[in-house]
Amino acid sequence: MNQTELLHVNFPHLRNLKPFESAHTATPWLADINSKHTRKLCASLEDAIARCGLKDGMTISFHHAFREGDRVINNVVATLARLGLKNLTLASSSLMTCNDALIAHIRSGVISRIYTSGMRGKLAEAISHGLMAEPVQIHSHGGRVKLLQDGELNIDVAFLGVPCSDEFGNANGTQGKSACGSLGYAMVDAQFAKKVVLLTEELVPYPNMPASLRQDQVDLIVQVESVGDPAKISVGAARVTSNPRELMIARYAADVIEHSGYFKDGFSMQTGSGAAATAATRFMEEKMERHGVKARFALGGITGSLVDLHEKGLIEKLLDTQCFDGEAAASLRRNPNHVEISTNVYANPAGKAASCDQLDVVILSALEIDVDFNVNVITGSDGVMRGASGGHCDVAAAANLTIVVAPLLRSRIPTVVKRVTTLLTPGESIDVLVTDHGIAVNPARPDIRERLLAAGLKIVDIEALYQRAISLTGEPKPIAFTDRIVGVIRYRDGSVIDVVREVKEEN
Amino acid sequence: MNQTELLHVNFPHLRNLKPFESAHTATPWLADINSKHTRKLCASLEDAIARCGLKDGMTISFHHAFREGDRVINNVVATLARLGLKNLTLASSSLMTCNDALIAHIRSGVISRIYTSGMRGKLAEAISHGLMAEPVQIHSHGGRVKLLQDGELNIDVAFLGVPCSDEFGNANGTQGKSACGSLGYAMVDAQFAKKVVLLTEELVPYPNMPASLRQDQVDLIVQVESVGDPAKISVGAARVTSNPRELMIARYAADVIEHSGYFKDGFSMQTGSGAAATAATRFMEEKMERHGVKARFALGGITGSLVDLHEKGLIEKLLDTQCFDGEAAASLRRNPNHVEISTNVYANPAGKAASCDQLDVVILSALEIDVDFNVNVITGSDGVMRGASGGHCDVAAAANLTIVVAPLLRSRIPTVVKRVTTLLTPGESIDVLVTDHGIAVNPARPDIRERLLAAGLKIVDIEALYQRAISLTGEPKPIAFTDRIVGVIRYRDGSVIDVVREVKEEN
Repeated sequence: MNQTELLHVNFPHLRNLKPFESAHTATPWLADINSKHTRKLCASLEDAIARCGLKDGMTISFHHAFREGDRVINNVVATLARLGLKNLTLASSSLMTCNDALIAHIRSGVISRIYTSGMRGKLAEAISHGLMAEPVQIHSHGGRVKLLQDGELNIDVAFLGVPCSDEFGNANGTQGKSACGSLGYAMVDAQFAKKVVLLTEELVPYPNMPASLRQDQVDLIVQVESVGDPAKISVGAARVTSNPRELMIARYAADVIEHSGYFKDGFSMQTGSGAAATAATRFMEEKMERHGVKARFALGGITGSLVDLHEKGLIEKLLDTQCFDGEAAASLRRNPNHVEISTNVYANPAGKAASCDQLDVVILSALEIDVDFNVNVITGSDGVMRGASGGHCDVAAAANLTIVVAPLLRSRIPTVVKRVTTLLTPGESIDVLVTDHGIAVNPARPDIRERLLAAGLKIVDIEALYQRAISLTGEPKPIAFTDRIVGVIRYRDGSVIDVVREVKEEN
Repeated sequence: MNQTELLHVNFPHLRNLKPFESAHTATPWLADINSKHTRKLCASLEDAIARCGLKDGMTISFHHAFREGDRVINNVVATLARLGLKNLTLASSSLMTCNDALIAHIRSGVISRIYTSGMRGKLAEAISHGLMAEPVQIHSHGGRVKLLQDGELNIDVAFLGVPCSDEFGNANGTQGKSACGSLGYAMVDAQFAKKVVLLTEELVPYPNMPASLRQDQVDLIVQVESVGDPAKISVGAARVTSNPRELMIARYAADVIEHSGYFKDGFSMQTGSGAAATAATRFMEEKMERHGVKARFALGGITGSLVDLHEKGLIEKLLDTQCFDGEAAASLRRNPNHVEISTNVYANPAGKAASCDQLDVVILSALEIDVDFNVNVITGSDGVMRGASGGHCDVAAAANLTIVVAPLLRSRIPTVVKRVTTLLTPGESIDVLVTDHGIAVNPARPDIRERLLAAGLKIVDIEALYQRAISLTGEPKPIAFTDRIVGVIRYRDGSVIDVVREVKEEN
């Protein structure tokens, strides 16, 4: 009787223990000096797809850190189409105008279900007009992590584009030719996906550490020509404005922060990706210097303006889920207190803690806001999807002061409306609306209203803003929808807060 | 029919989706400005234990980053004893001389099962003499992660001591009064445990980032007077030697590395925690400078000597699972290329990649090594446990060149023996033995033997070393054991490579 057998006799509950065979029984790659180094490397994307075990009906995921510059999603889905895969669930953290090519793959049945934070361009238009049999699930950044945690969203293979990786899969977004900065979205997929395939532009020597995506999360690695164009990260949502109306709104928003009661040394803020919201950062600088107020941290999508304040010592730490421009990506590389965080850390409502819960002030955008302060960030006034849920409802729910900035009219169409076309963030989460025609405070926050009035800011009733808007444009014609549901708006806790219906052709 | 009901009618597979209720339904703490900040904070350790749901028969875990200075394990187990908990499995990453107090809690039935990398002192003596009904499971650092991954080891509550944390549980080992450095062991427990309780000396302002243990991993936080004495980290295994025999062995080991064929620019190394192994680092410096050879990385337990080489530019990166002294902890704080890694990244044989697989050269210690190069690092020549598995078998299996350093005799007892008392690392993983009486090369590595001979090193047969040893001391008297199994030695893949038997009292 060998020692293991003896052990089983004496301790029957240890009977699953096996006797030792050899040092390399469980790690055969260690017996060969080459396979130690090459076991994850794939000759081509096709090779990676074959090796990751992807099959019809499975779920694939992507991150959107490159935003409009992304070259991974279209490339991978086209390859899957060539390989004959069908009926896949596409779970990209978001989709952009650059993803129009997906329309053909939805038509041909390669993609039959979509989870995303949002969509834009021709793809969004086609889906709004009934392209897909099943409605798209629109989630927030925090809500997506909850869907993963709950298992509703079950990623079989994550295809994650990175500028550089070593042969074990240690990767980050700060080195290499196409540095996109934070990999906050991808970090979540690397944690939850059953298989993780890295697409990398460069293979760098081991160890490429510190790493955002770690070797113990990555299964396969394939080198590709390009994963994205970082110059296009700041196209679209994350642009910098010189529009005087947006700058005026930004200045008002900064005034609101200054007098809100939350502008204290050690406060924290998020400014989102909207043009006016981003611009408000610049107006904060002068106020912070004048009052000797420093922020403990800024959160979420990070811009060059926030980096500037950080490097001037006005913001102690930057907690970054997404770099909105090249300045932010460069800062993440060089500033030790510019910290990359996952969307799990950022905003998961079902996580052990979300950074947004620590937030004092956030400035958010809106496509529409109604007289009950409900916000729409997904559909345009024509009912067509053209935006993204993003972190909007996550941060609005969590911050102590949630400010929405929006022009009263866009191209002669009211932003302040009677009832939002699509509800993303409930009015209970919005404290203040800042427009170019005045500032409205949610009646649920009389404390803030008092302070802003005392500071001499122009406070108006939101109903008055609505009346002002329709007095300028007339009452907008109702959008004609069919009964068919093309999108489901999931609140951050997974519940259904609204649906999007198919837009009638005659619109 | 509301929109969610309509959705269920049209898409029956979406029938689990619930309608939105309110922004704070799933996050009630957000409705109250105080509970946002305090929901993890516990008034006392007793409070934390009550809130974490720990029950009789469950598994608790600890890290041993403070080594002989640890003040968490004894404190927590004494508190559990006071609270009347029984029949717990203790899964500390290792146990030390400072844990003698556990003997009473094993006797009283608070602890009935132990998983650990090793043990020393009175606790080890008592267990070697039959203290526990069930044998202790001795695992390697990498093997422990595999046990967690496989579910054999299922941590209900991890009690993790840290020098500082914020109120959400972002913690690291580099800030605060009692900085221990790398939390490489704790990172694994934070990942796998069902509940994570932090014991912290300091509560620092949010956000304490970058963090080694993250807010999305931590459930509860309790502030305590002390978690450990960092001055005692380098006591015991991790000491620095001035012993001339150990320095001689260290110099020979450096010579072996130089001429082994693996001493090339960009090579990598690990020197472990043994005195001679640590000292070998110092002899490497001169060789590296003379030959213009730089190491890409050093791995594992990091010492001040390795930090010195890193800061002189001779080692590009330090991958650190455990700081063996204060210099290493201080370096981890200040050097961006001194990178903290978990034991999962370090050595898990069932992980997606282990850093040890990239290793060229490792110097390891031994309590005994036999003529087949088998190594014992757990039991002394009296059969009593007095060591730890550590990363020994992990790194030995993975490195291209595995060197064991040991004096031929210790206190007139042979280190080179006919057959090891207890087998931890199989001889197939050991390439070279360096003693103060000569260097033996495993016959499986004739290539290395040739190179060392060509360099004029004193190569002897391991059988000759054994004969030399017993000619000096006489053949050691066999140890008297009973049939009872008191320890099970688990190889890194989980298999049983040996057992430890109860030492007979007459020994």
